[in-house]
Amino acid sequence: MTRLTDLQIRQMLSKAVEKAEEIGVQICVAVVDDGANLQGFLRMDKARLGPVDVSQRKAKTALYFHADTGDFGKVMREAHLTGIELIGGGLTGFAGGLPIRMDGEVIGGIGVSGATAEQDKEVAEYALQVLLQ
Amino acid sequence: MTRLTDLQIRQMLSKAVEKAEEIGVQICVAVVDDGANLQGFLRMDKARLGPVDVSQRKAKTALYFHADTGDFGKVMREAHLTGIELIGGGLTGFAGGLPIRMDGEVIGGIGVSGATAEQDKEVAEYALQVLLQ
Amino acid sequence: MTRLTDLQIRQMLSKAVEKAEEIGVQICVAVVDDGANLQGFLRMDKARLGPVDVSQRKAKTALYFHADTGDFGKVMREAHLTGIELIGGGLTGFAGGLPIRMDGEVIGGIGVSGATAEQDKEVAEYALQVLLQ
Amino acid sequence: MTRLTDLQIRQMLSKAVEKAEEIGVQICVAVVDDGANLQGFLRMDKARLGPVDVSQRKAKTALYFHADTGDFGKVMREAHLTGIELIGGGLTGFAGGLPIRMDGEVIGGIGVSGATAEQDKEVAEYALQVLLQ
Repeated sequence: MTRLTDLQIRQMLSKAVEKAEEIGVQICVAVVDDGANLQGFLRMDKARLGPVDVSQRKAKTALYFHADTGDFGKVMREAHLTGIELIGGGLTGFAGGLPIRMDGEVIGGIGVSGATAEQDKEVAEYALQVLLQ
Repeated sequence: MTRLTDLQIRQMLSKAVEKAEEIGVQICVAVVDDGANLQGFLRMDKARLGPVDVSQRKAKTALYFHADTGDFGKVMREAHLTGIELIGGGLTGFAGGLPIRMDGEVIGGIGVSGATAEQDKEVAEYALQVLLQ
Repeated sequence: MTRLTDLQIRQMLSKAVEKAEEIGVQICVAVVDDGANLQGFLRMDKARLGPVDVSQRKAKTALYFHADTGDFGKVMREAHLTGIELIGGGLTGFAGGLPIRMDGEVIGGIGVSGATAEQDKEVAEYALQVLLQ
Repeated sequence: MTRLTDLQIRQMLSKAVEKAEEIGVQICVAVVDDGANLQGFLRMDKARLGPVDVSQRKAKTALYFHADTGDFGKVMREAHLTGIELIGGGLTGFAGGLPIRMDGEVIGGIGVSGATAEQDKEVAEYALQVLLQ
């Protein structure tokens, strides 16, 4: 299994901050590996505290189900997956979490929280550009 | 970062009781600092036990998201933030929790529970008048 | 069952602060009722965060076993009560927690934390003088 | 209260990796603010999973009691503070956690885990040199 290096993790954290600053939001960003265990985390200076936990849960949710958390939230609600939000200590079913893919495999998850769900997702997508380098 | 003094905390607890007695309700009141850690708590003589936890969660929720918990609850429901109520061990999305602001910064949260959500909010607002002195 | 009034609770919190200031320490003080549910709590301005939890656990431990937490800790260690510290989510076996007695009955527990265990106990004993008034 | 910037946090994470690589160990490093809330975290490529949690608990323990976790562990054992290891969801009483001080105040905690306790402490101390710049 390919795994992100700690250098890549640090680059992803920095990229997330870069994009967040550009669009003028304050976020937390978390990255988990393929075992759902934390690899990296960063809170921006003015981010509120709620996102500390939200970002980590988004990363986990994206990894757990190999899905964009916004898409997965829609499934959770529309397919009446009653109780699924309680899985793993608590899933997060709104945008900002993305699976991390490499060579066609899911190798982790990234979660961003602090702005609107759509802005969070934009920041997460930008941070993942590290993998294109 | 400014922090409330223990004297101010005691005044807020007393103010909350004063208003609750005036409107004839029995409440619990909790205050957390900017790190979501408990600074003060008081349960009135005839308050039920549920509010012991509810008041603390309202204070935390208000601090976590810098929001009136009633307003935030509306966002939680209408923006389909599925699973967000599980964050931080459990958020509370109805009125009675308010962020505590000083010099334009959020320095804590207050949560009141025991009566109707609107009465809880009224008590919380009254207790915050301590900061105007 | 006699229960402390919220006025007595506030007086106990203030008494605890008064004694702590006199001996130059920064503490947290917690009071639980006969059901081990929180009635009052106060953190002094410069108290560290560990005592937020320690004070509440001392109050609970004292109530759970109707004992001075220092004495009870000795029993825990010397009688080899293996695992007893895990009861109720975690007991605290050192001084600073006292049962609150009235008319020969245990009606609650008080816990103080922030200084040495002996100073914590001194503050707790002083706060209980409210009941002699 | 002064707070570390996210830039300083990233520098501390990088410094920790730099020192760990120099001495040939694989670690996790965590930084919490003055409210014990996570500000930054990084796991090195070959670090085991236990340290993910240990590093965060060391950072919290150091902040909770304003102490080097190695020194505090000695107090925990020798002063018979029975049950104190359960506080705050679990403390860690061995070296590798240090309070972060600025202008004479404790503004956070850093925790390192993955190598021997003494090596962990060495890495934590090195990471804190960021604050001297």
